Amino acid sequence: MTMAKRDTYTPESLLAVAVEVFNERGYDGTSMEHLSRAAGISKSSIYHHVKGKEELLRLAISRALDGLFGILQEPASLDGRAIERLEHVARRTAEVLMEELPYVTLLLRVRGNTDTERWAMERRREFDHQVAELLKRAAADGDLRSDVDARLATRLLFGMINSIVEWYRPGRGGAATSQEVAEAVVRTAFAGLRTQR
Amino acid sequence: MTMAKRDTYTPESLLAVAVEVFNERGYDGTSMEHLSRAAGISKSSIYHHVKGKEELLRLAISRALDGLFGILQEPASLDGRAIERLEHVARRTAEVLMEELPYVTLLLRVRGNTDTERWAMERRREFDHQVAELLKRAAADGDLRSDVDARLATRLLFGMINSIVEWYRPGRGGAATSQEVAEAVVRTAFAGLRTQR
Repeated sequence: MTMAKRDTYTPESLLAVAVEVFNERGYDGTSMEHLSRAAGISKSSIYHHVKGKEELLRLAISRALDGLFGILQEPASLDGRAIERLEHVARRTAEVLMEELPYVTLLLRVRGNTDTERWAMERRREFDHQVAELLKRAAADGDLRSDVDARLATRLLFGMINSIVEWYRPGRGGAATSQEVAEAVVRTAFAGLRTQR
Repeated sequence: MTMAKRDTYTPESLLAVAVEVFNERGYDGTSMEHLSRAAGISKSSIYHHVKGKEELLRLAISRALDGLFGILQEPASLDGRAIERLEHVARRTAEVLMEELPYVTLLLRVRGNTDTERWAMERRREFDHQVAELLKRAAADGDLRSDVDARLATRLLFGMINSIVEWYRPGRGGAATSQEVAEAVVRTAFAGLRTQR
């Protein structure tokens, strides 16, 4: 039994609760009832803040996408040699993923049953596409190894970065910080784990 | 409406159908009714082959685990310098993942609500642990860069390999073969994407 508590939510704090429930139950598997129970306020209180669960999804996904697309506007993503810009984007993508962990986790898990989910997937593909372009430029500059296909390299790089959501939990004692993890990603993917001889 | 067809299944071909349904609906979300509909045979026909869905899960997970643990017994995993053994294990893990795609996908997705799922997670951790040991040995030999923590490196390496299940579909026209993808994984993770100067 949960006692309904007074609604002291802001759209932002309500969003944090909703994203947690979405990630746990899946967006499809989450009802307004589940959200109401998790937030400890009535469904009508939730409707006071948002139109419904799809609006909460859109707000959450927007937060993840704003973080990711913001990276592409940073000076270090825009100026300089493509390989340096690419490394910056990879490092920052890993960092944003960890800083906005529940929001990016949700973005990575949406599968496209509603307009909002399809829009999320479309925007995610656009981000990947922009990084792939940077990768092609770095390859054209002769800064990327030519024996790994650019499309495959993009997938493996994002595969490595996105897998961080599976195990990274912020503030866990003795664990690496988001900067350390991001640095390890860049070193592994660009310079390789093996000692150079 | 599906017409029940004559039961011409072997335990193996029934397993292939079950794994597909498990991966699509999630193991928890799959009932014997779903399996019966997908296979086009009655529930009692399924019970003729197996005790229930948990036995199907155990058989499917066993197939994935046999493939993965088999790698550790290959001569190239047992003899030679740790770094070479590690690269062999990484390449073969990627290959087995693609060759046994639905089975390994299922293994990577189980979450531990039943005894069989907990056993699967335990065995998976054991595999990761054995690879991490190899990584530590390669580090002790001075063959791995010392500025990336061994535990983190193991996670990023498996993160990259396991992410292949998200996009790899065998026999898709023009796509890379499992050997090409596995080679790209090894080159990226061990030698790095960046041209060495």
